[in-house]
Amino acid sequence: MIFVDACFKKETPYTPIWMMRQAGRYLPEYMEVRNKAGDFLTLCKNPEMAAEVTLQPVEILNVDAAILFSDILVIPLEMGMELRFEKGEGPVFDKPIRTKEDLNALYEYPEERLGYVYETIKLVRDKLPKEKALIGFSGAPWTLATYMVEGGGSKTYANIKKLIYTDPEFMHDLMRKITEAVKAYLIKQIESGVNAVQIFDSWASALEKEKFFEFSWDYMVDIAEFLKERYPHIPVILFPKGIGGYLDSIYGRFDVFGVDWGTPIELAKKHLSDRYVLQGNMEPTRLYSKEATREGVEKIVQTMGAKPGHIFNLGHGMLPDLPVENAKYLVELVHDLTKR
Amino acid sequence: MIFVDACFKKETPYTPIWMMRQAGRYLPEYMEVRNKAGDFLTLCKNPEMAAEVTLQPVEILNVDAAILFSDILVIPLEMGMELRFEKGEGPVFDKPIRTKEDLNALYEYPEERLGYVYETIKLVRDKLPKEKALIGFSGAPWTLATYMVEGGGSKTYANIKKLIYTDPEFMHDLMRKITEAVKAYLIKQIESGVNAVQIFDSWASALEKEKFFEFSWDYMVDIAEFLKERYPHIPVILFPKGIGGYLDSIYGRFDVFGVDWGTPIELAKKHLSDRYVLQGNMEPTRLYSKEATREGVEKIVQTMGAKPGHIFNLGHGMLPDLPVENAKYLVELVHDLTKR
Repeated sequence: MIFVDACFKKETPYTPIWMMRQAGRYLPEYMEVRNKAGDFLTLCKNPEMAAEVTLQPVEILNVDAAILFSDILVIPLEMGMELRFEKGEGPVFDKPIRTKEDLNALYEYPEERLGYVYETIKLVRDKLPKEKALIGFSGAPWTLATYMVEGGGSKTYANIKKLIYTDPEFMHDLMRKITEAVKAYLIKQIESGVNAVQIFDSWASALEKEKFFEFSWDYMVDIAEFLKERYPHIPVILFPKGIGGYLDSIYGRFDVFGVDWGTPIELAKKHLSDRYVLQGNMEPTRLYSKEATREGVEKIVQTMGAKPGHIFNLGHGMLPDLPVENAKYLVELVHDLTKR
Repeated sequence: MIFVDACFKKETPYTPIWMMRQAGRYLPEYMEVRNKAGDFLTLCKNPEMAAEVTLQPVEILNVDAAILFSDILVIPLEMGMELRFEKGEGPVFDKPIRTKEDLNALYEYPEERLGYVYETIKLVRDKLPKEKALIGFSGAPWTLATYMVEGGGSKTYANIKKLIYTDPEFMHDLMRKITEAVKAYLIKQIESGVNAVQIFDSWASALEKEKFFEFSWDYMVDIAEFLKERYPHIPVILFPKGIGGYLDSIYGRFDVFGVDWGTPIELAKKHLSDRYVLQGNMEPTRLYSKEATREGVEKIVQTMGAKPGHIFNLGHGMLPDLPVENAKYLVELVHDLTKR
């Protein structure tokens, strides 16, 4: 598989590309399934429908990898936290985790209850062309913890940061519990057939440097090393968003570093490309314009070269109103400009 | 004034400190005035009350500078955009700027309508002890533009970014109009008695590097140079939040660079301290704990030294539930640990 080879810095016929949130609302085909499902969580929990939307972008856009359609919050959900998605508000946990009692009440083995995800993986892997990779994923423990403690999205992360600075032991207990769940969950995804895994730390930038390493990065790397120990042929991709100022301190055993659009690709190259394959990082909103897309692709390809060491991606997820036509154009352009 | 001397890297008896949002909801004395005013905008527009809350933190915390109590959105407000503050939602402009017609309808001289701000400045400067500085401020053109185009706060900045990539000329017209207004507004603040000015680019990190420089930084520096040309004795502080990855490209004529908490102070020191005084950058949520506060102060003082070149501040604004007691402790600690 081109994508997997690229993760290991092997020679490939061109630079592979996939897009974060490539299965999503910008695709009319997705909206059709989503409307049939009724709501987002029902779609995540229905293997047939989840498999269908996972496969769509591979067929429609010709990307080199599918990424499992699911949500990072299925882990806390299956730990027993009631989850709802509010229009305009995003995910909401009405009973957030704030005390030892809350923490102890969490079910320890959510991976056992996530059969619908493994079923989706099997269905996708069955139907996906052999040369295309299927990427599994999980939220990073820190990002999951922010939702679990704040009770949803947050601007200030005041509750969880208060815990970090006033009760670090409690926070480490929480982080360990989530970390163990993520390990078991990703192992099961691998056993069900994914060809690579990505860990999304969407809220990495919510922590100052030293606390990021203590409460987020170290747990991510622990998971990566656990997986590499057991399944060395499965690439592990880490994506900590918004930490462009900390790149000189990034170490650990994993394969691919996901670069967000706020981190200049030349900066990531300077600090990380000798040790990791880089994935990213076009500004997604460049897709509003063909011209801006071409300019963005050319700059990144010029920096990373049409050679091993780079996987093309957006620096953040697709937005609902980006034109499908421009996404197709992007994939063609990347394949075309990086042909060896 | 110790604060002004520090901005020019002159010798001072200790490192001065003030805090972003030091006049705010965490102070019971502020809440009293705020409740009397009824709502936030009324408070901003009432010089007596605005002056009172501006002065409070100087008396209560013994910070070395007062910062004018106002809101960055008074410029678009006085350009004719109807503004309301919604509970939980933040500021809302019901009629955002999206077209040339919208842009042309904006009143060009909002500084003429901002007399209540200049009145507040005069009242504060009258009552403020002579050795304490009064800082005036404005939102950066880019940050103001995000509110004006998005119609409020935004997670994705999809509308304004769409304009950036599809109609850059329109965006530059908008940026120029706002920039001229900011220049005139800050000149009037200086003429009314402020001793320094800070330009807040709270949403600097919403743009990828090259677009940040094109649509935000260049306009900020244009304002700074305009002010320095006319009032060289007034320090100009620029605070672009979240651009830790771009520090190697920061140039221009201004005095102080504000470092947010997500940018490691040692990184800012490395790239910028030979050319600028640095201001910042303790993680505000460290103030939840005395111990974390001490640890944070010690680390920053160790990095920056008890010598010219540094102004202590938080790396972002005070939060409403931070204990006043810890804020007092912070000010004492900084004064104490940096005594020459």
